[in-house]
Amino acid sequence: MKIVRTVSELRGIVRQARTNGSALIGLVPTMGALHDGHLSLVHAARRDCGFVIMSIFVNPKQFTEAADLEGYPRQEAADTALADAAGVDVVFAPDASELYPDGFATTVHVTGPLTQTLEAAGRGPEHFDGVATVVSKLLIAAGADAAFFGQKDAQQVLVVRRMVADLGIPTDIVACPTVRDSDGLAKSSRNVRLSGADRAQAVAIPRALEAVEAALALGETGTDALHSRATTVLTAAGITPEYVAFVDARTLLPATDIAEPVLCAIAARVGSVRLIDNTLLTLPDTIEEN
Amino acid sequence: MKIVRTVSELRGIVRQARTNGSALIGLVPTMGALHDGHLSLVHAARRDCGFVIMSIFVNPKQFTEAADLEGYPRQEAADTALADAAGVDVVFAPDASELYPDGFATTVHVTGPLTQTLEAAGRGPEHFDGVATVVSKLLIAAGADAAFFGQKDAQQVLVVRRMVADLGIPTDIVACPTVRDSDGLAKSSRNVRLSGADRAQAVAIPRALEAVEAALALGETGTDALHSRATTVLTAAGITPEYVAFVDARTLLPATDIAEPVLCAIAARVGSVRLIDNTLLTLPDTIEEN
Repeated sequence: MKIVRTVSELRGIVRQARTNGSALIGLVPTMGALHDGHLSLVHAARRDCGFVIMSIFVNPKQFTEAADLEGYPRQEAADTALADAAGVDVVFAPDASELYPDGFATTVHVTGPLTQTLEAAGRGPEHFDGVATVVSKLLIAAGADAAFFGQKDAQQVLVVRRMVADLGIPTDIVACPTVRDSDGLAKSSRNVRLSGADRAQAVAIPRALEAVEAALALGETGTDALHSRATTVLTAAGITPEYVAFVDARTLLPATDIAEPVLCAIAARVGSVRLIDNTLLTLPDTIEEN
Repeated sequence: MKIVRTVSELRGIVRQARTNGSALIGLVPTMGALHDGHLSLVHAARRDCGFVIMSIFVNPKQFTEAADLEGYPRQEAADTALADAAGVDVVFAPDASELYPDGFATTVHVTGPLTQTLEAAGRGPEHFDGVATVVSKLLIAAGADAAFFGQKDAQQVLVVRRMVADLGIPTDIVACPTVRDSDGLAKSSRNVRLSGADRAQAVAIPRALEAVEAALALGETGTDALHSRATTVLTAAGITPEYVAFVDARTLLPATDIAEPVLCAIAARVGSVRLIDNTLLTLPDTIEEN
């Protein structure tokens, strides 16, 4: 497995890979601190593509809290070993100055509800500008046929899909299921910053989503009632959520019932760590379109 | 010569052109109403590239005046004949709904002085968002090795170069010299909207640029003095310019003398038509870096 630091090296390697055959090129964009969620993206990429790139870049433009950026776990040696073992062909790990050299002045901005709700409130509207900008750069640099993202960041997936469709970037955006620990907590690089007590509290987030799913399975389709189920579970665990939202799974506009697929998304701070999770709610006879 | 309406058709043709040989692909982006300025871009593209695409698209997003968009000359049959005769291989002439379908929500925005001065004042800051967004889409769609722009739109060239560098779009941006009529007026699709009297007045714009160049050749390097030379010529012709600006040719920041290459740019309304023109000012021993 190769590790490259510059866009031009990456381009050369991709050109070579294409010359060596007609293999599809897959990209798994990450901020490092790899966990099983990331590795599941690599497995999906390996399944679909003949050549797999993983980018590792803690993108300063998508952090709106200096402490979060500073505290974000960085462990490149461990990450590259994990990537190698998972079958990644090349890791692209640029310095910030490679992607944002002096004089950098361009922002890719997605307007509308996709970037105005959920995480935009908690993390600031600049968050998704940072995401859209860096992902457009990574996709253009890699020239990948497909890129793999975790459904845990459901809003990010929608923003990236919108940006890719709008700019006509010829990369399929593949969303992969959220990977969970045995206690149900969604895998996240930030989980390492949870204390033991935080961790015990944090599992109320997946429990709340399960409570919503269970109520829906019993026929409760009103989002007000489902909202109560979730907040009851969270409150009982001592969590005051930043949001418990029921939104149309494609537009992120508020949903009053589960006629169309609805994303139930939760954000909450546990200890010093801000966690997010979500589940897709569909009626039993509704075909998932996500 | 082929005419295609969709990005996917264009991609197919470019893929075929690449398969047929290693010819470089050139793109000449236009809004139609072709004149000798556009055709000089095609000649430059033909010189550098084995396969030449011309896009013809009156981009609504870069117009900030409804009347200007509505009145913009449209003459596709004449344009495609001119393109064919000039050696264009394929014209890409999409409908607005192809480039901006329902739900389109992405803007490519270049921040800083490049988009805050000169045309930004007259046309609104959205103008260059429209330019950067459509050009990024055209470059990504065409996958061109080089794209050719007229130096008459000097600020546009700088904004596009910045955007292309920042997003890492692998296309060389080539700026070609302004083409002028025999009376000196820069070729522009909007010139057809000038009356005979307007036209006689409008030539004061290139005369003003020539007066600046002549004064510089005689050793006047202060931009205040050069500014006076230009406004004297314009005022004598009854033109009140929107701006006569002397700005660093790379940053567009105000310049007080011609130590570094300076762009002298003029915008003025003549009759109902807004005209722009510019010239690059360098000291005799300064190497042009534009």
